Amino acid sequence: MKIYGDSISGNCLKVKWTADFLGIPYEWVETDVLKAETRTPEFLALNPAGQVPAVVLEDGRPLAQSNAIILHLAEGSQLVPQEAYDRARMLEWLFWEQYSHEPYVAVARFQVKYLGKAPAELEPRLVERGKAALQRLEDGLAGSAFLVTDRLTLADVALVAYTRFAEEGGFRLADYPKVKAWVSRVEQALGIAAVEPA
Amino acid sequence: MKIYGDSISGNCLKVKWTADFLGIPYEWVETDVLKAETRTPEFLALNPAGQVPAVVLEDGRPLAQSNAIILHLAEGSQLVPQEAYDRARMLEWLFWEQYSHEPYVAVARFQVKYLGKAPAELEPRLVERGKAALQRLEDGLAGSAFLVTDRLTLADVALVAYTRFAEEGGFRLADYPKVKAWVSRVEQALGIAAVEPA
Repeated sequence: MKIYGDSISGNCLKVKWTADFLGIPYEWVETDVLKAETRTPEFLALNPAGQVPAVVLEDGRPLAQSNAIILHLAEGSQLVPQEAYDRARMLEWLFWEQYSHEPYVAVARFQVKYLGKAPAELEPRLVERGKAALQRLEDGLAGSAFLVTDRLTLADVALVAYTRFAEEGGFRLADYPKVKAWVSRVEQALGIAAVEPA
Repeated sequence: MKIYGDSISGNCLKVKWTADFLGIPYEWVETDVLKAETRTPEFLALNPAGQVPAVVLEDGRPLAQSNAIILHLAEGSQLVPQEAYDRARMLEWLFWEQYSHEPYVAVARFQVKYLGKAPAELEPRLVERGKAALQRLEDGLAGSAFLVTDRLTLADVALVAYTRFAEEGGFRLADYPKVKAWVSRVEQALGIAAVEPA
């Protein structure tokens, strides 16, 4: 498998972590979003949506959308609950992540870290919705060590991807103590190093 | 099962159509977003994200996120391909819908039809990204009658939900002839009436 990804992107790292965790071999093809390497004719032939991550599976067929890719890779593994309801709750978190978390928490971080905005210059709606997403996670972690059950699932992999970078977007993880502890727990479960303080 | 939904919302209608298509009985609980009925303590206890649709399953457990709900309802049915790659492509469309289609095509329609904006007053980025999403669908339909295979899947159910309302947001479906024909095909397969011209 080839993974086309940008190492600064949480969406791309989700795919790398899932493959690493499951011992799935791959070749990482660094694809720089800021240099518009996702807009070349070659890349658009692979993913017409012009987004990373995209993978080319062993049989040569392409697949895009980070959460669709990790679901495909992890199907049948310990990262996907067997019980139908737990599985559905995992999917609920995955869709919520792309609709209500990533567009705020990841976009704030991108604007601050890569476009050079000060956190105080961010659009208030972005900050407000990012905080609401982090609070929703805090509430979701009230009863268990991980988001769906007491074990790591793809919901944790997907949600940790940008939550662990939240401080780079001006959010304070200290305001969400359960989230902060969960980030460390997920990083440890995945065997990845903690993010350096912003 | 109880479906909490707003009849004007494509995301909610997805759940209704899927249940109807599969013959799953339910009680529809009309929940008016414009009247903030998704912000009451009772509703937030059901879905802390404060969004419709949300369902309460037969065993009393709640589930939210339209695409997670339809995946849960349709698992094992003809609406979900058995082949792993087709299944993954279906998931790719479902995640793409929530990230790159709904936030533009549905939001433009909401602002025009329910907030009274003229299409010319819409934010240019919204219109541009909505058009890009419709073009992506047009390209995706170049080789087959439905999005994933030659048969109806949840990808079609999810994507048709707001595409069929696109003209209410000022988009012209005549510019996307394959999409226009596919909308009718999906409506027919689901047994739902066409949208009245805007």
